Amino acid sequence: MPGISNFWAVIPAGGAGTRLWPLSRSSEPKFLRDLTGSGRSLLQSTYDRLAPAVDDRFLVVTGRAHRDAVVAQLPEVGADAVVAEPSPRDSMAAIGLAAAVLERRDPDAVMGSFAADHVIADAAGFREVVATAVAAAREDWLVTIGIEPTHPSTAFGYIHVGDRLAGHDGVRLVREFVEKPSAEVAEGYLATGRYRWNAGMFVARPRVVLDLLAAGDPGFAATLRDIAAGRVPLEEAWPTLPRIAIDHAVAEPAAAAGRVATVPATFGWDDVGDFDSLATLLGGAGVTVLGDADLVEAQDATGLVVPAGGRVVAVVGLDDVVVVDTPDAVLVTSRARAQQVKQVVDALKERGRTDLT
Amino acid sequence: MPGISNFWAVIPAGGAGTRLWPLSRSSEPKFLRDLTGSGRSLLQSTYDRLAPAVDDRFLVVTGRAHRDAVVAQLPEVGADAVVAEPSPRDSMAAIGLAAAVLERRDPDAVMGSFAADHVIADAAGFREVVATAVAAAREDWLVTIGIEPTHPSTAFGYIHVGDRLAGHDGVRLVREFVEKPSAEVAEGYLATGRYRWNAGMFVARPRVVLDLLAAGDPGFAATLRDIAAGRVPLEEAWPTLPRIAIDHAVAEPAAAAGRVATVPATFGWDDVGDFDSLATLLGGAGVTVLGDADLVEAQDATGLVVPAGGRVVAVVGLDDVVVVDTPDAVLVTSRARAQQVKQVVDALKERGRTDLT
Repeated sequence: MPGISNFWAVIPAGGAGTRLWPLSRSSEPKFLRDLTGSGRSLLQSTYDRLAPAVDDRFLVVTGRAHRDAVVAQLPEVGADAVVAEPSPRDSMAAIGLAAAVLERRDPDAVMGSFAADHVIADAAGFREVVATAVAAAREDWLVTIGIEPTHPSTAFGYIHVGDRLAGHDGVRLVREFVEKPSAEVAEGYLATGRYRWNAGMFVARPRVVLDLLAAGDPGFAATLRDIAAGRVPLEEAWPTLPRIAIDHAVAEPAAAAGRVATVPATFGWDDVGDFDSLATLLGGAGVTVLGDADLVEAQDATGLVVPAGGRVVAVVGLDDVVVVDTPDAVLVTSRARAQQVKQVVDALKERGRTDLT
Repeated sequence: MPGISNFWAVIPAGGAGTRLWPLSRSSEPKFLRDLTGSGRSLLQSTYDRLAPAVDDRFLVVTGRAHRDAVVAQLPEVGADAVVAEPSPRDSMAAIGLAAAVLERRDPDAVMGSFAADHVIADAAGFREVVATAVAAAREDWLVTIGIEPTHPSTAFGYIHVGDRLAGHDGVRLVREFVEKPSAEVAEGYLATGRYRWNAGMFVARPRVVLDLLAAGDPGFAATLRDIAAGRVPLEEAWPTLPRIAIDHAVAEPAAAAGRVATVPATFGWDDVGDFDSLATLLGGAGVTVLGDADLVEAQDATGLVVPAGGRVVAVVGLDDVVVVDTPDAVLVTSRARAQQVKQVVDALKERGRTDLT
C-alpha cells in the first residue's frame, strides 16, 4: 500500500533525555536507545511507524555530534536526508529549516513533524490520525495532534479544543495552547473533556509554517528560505537564528489567529520523560526488567531494573525502586523521585565528570 | 614492649560472609576484605591488634583455597604458620588442630582463638582484656571474653555470668552459654546485667582445650594429637573428624562442669554480620561511603554505598538504602532487609551463577 501522497515526515532528533541518565547521555541520547525492549531505538521505531505513511519521504534534523549515529541507525533513510544542525538552536530553527527545504523540493508537500524520542502504542491508529491531519493541512491549516489525557499530568502543555472543523470528520479547531498547568488546573482540564495533551506534533504545508513564522518574524523565515535556496551558507546563517520553540514562534500566535486545527487521538502516547513513566509504559507486576532478565535477581521488590552493564543486579526488599546499571555509572532511586535524576547530571557536570553525562 | 610470654594467637580464618555479598565471596571472603576503609583487611587488622600481645607467635587456620591469599596478606606471619584445612570441618577441628600443634611446640603455651573477620574499636583495651584472660588461663581455666551488649541482639549467643573468680580481678565464672535468644528473652538478659555476648573468643592452655574435648570425645582429641605428632597424615585423618563447633564440643560441657571463666569487656566489638551492622559500624550522617567517596553522588539519601566497581554510583531520594557495586554484580537493598542478602546468594547458586558467589 503506498503512503500518503506528497506527505513528508520530519523527525527532529534532539534532546539529551537528562532525566533518563545514565541510560541516556549527551553522547548517546534517549532517541538512539532502545527504551522499550523492542530491539529498535526510539528513533528507529519513529521511522518504522511513519514509513508506511511517507514511503521514503523523510527528513531527519539532528545535532552534528549525532549525525553519523542517526545515519547508521536509519540506513533506509539515506545520509542526504539527515540534516545536521551546526549547533542546537531550539525547535523553530530545526523544523523551520526542514520546512524551507521541503517547500523548494515539493510544491505540494505536506510535512508532519514528529519527535524522535516518543513512544506510541498503536502505530496503525497513529497513521489514521495522521492521514486525517494531512487532509486538513492540505487546506492550509496548521494541524496539531491532541492526545487524550489519561491522567491530570503537570508535565505537558495542553490544547484547548474548540468547535468541529467543517468538512473534516474528527478534526476540531484549536482555541489556544496552554502551558504546563498546576495539578489543580490539570484536574479541571480533565473534567471539562475539552483539553488534550500537546505532544508537539505538527502537520502543515511547509509554506504555511514559514508564512506563519514570517507574520511574527519576517527575517527568521527569510533566512531559512535563503539557507534552503543556497543563497547563504548554513554555517554562517545558523548562529544568527533566534533560539525559540516552534510553539511560541508559530503555534500560539496561529491559534490566536484561528489558523490551527487538531485531531483528537487515543493511540497511546508517551514521551518517556523519566524512569517513572518508563516503568508505567513497560508495565508488568513486580520488578520490570528492561534488558536481559537473566541478569536480575529480585526478591520482595517492585519497580524498574535496567541491567545495561552486563553485570548481575540483585534487588531485595524495596518497592518502586529504579536501578539502572551501565558500564560506567549506576543509578539507584525511586519511581517517585525519578524526576530528580536531572539534578544528578547537573551535579556530575559541576564535578567535571562530563565523561558520564 | 614485649608481648605476653608464651601467649599464642590462633586465628581461624573461615566463613564466606554470605550476607555481605557481593563484597564477600567464596573466592574472596569477608576476612580478606577491607570492610572499614582502614586500608587493611579484617584479617590484617586482626593481626595488627594481636601482634603486640604475641610478638611472632601466630597460627592461622584457613581453607586450602585461601591459603595463598592469607600468606600474601600476612607476610610477617610466614607461610609455616598458616595451616590449610583440607576441607571445612567446623571450628572444633580447626581450633583443636591448632591446640594440638601448640601443645607440642610450647609446653607453657596459652592460646587465644580470635576470628579473622571481627572488628574491634579499642585495640589497646582488647589487649588488656586478653592479658587478664591469659593470667586466668595459666591456672587451667577455659577463659572466654564476654562482650557487654549494646542492644538486645538476637544474632548472638549469650554468656550467663556468675560469681567473681577469686584472685583474678575482672574475671567471673561462667554459669552457662545460651543460644541466640528471642527478642523478648534478649531484653530480659539485658535487664539483669548478668549476660554478655559470646563473641567466640577463647583463651586457654592447649592441653586444657584438648583434655576438655577428650572428656566428651576421646577419639577426636587423640586424632588431633596424632596429626600434630605426625603419627597420621593430615589428609587421611581430617575427613574422619566430626563436624562440630567448639562451643558445643568443649565450651558448653566445660561450663556445666564449672571449668569456664569470662572477662567482661567493653572494647567495642562487631562481627560485621551484614550491611546493616556494617553501616552502623561505619556510622556517619547521610550516605556513608565505604571506598572512594568521589565515586558517589547522593541526593536526599541515607544509608551505605560501596563503590567497589570503579563506577560512579548515584543515589537519589532513598533512606537507609544499601548499594554495593562490584565489577560483576550490583546489590541494592535496604538496611532493614540486609539479612536477606543470603537468599540472593542461594538463588544465584541455584541458577548456576557460582562464578558470582
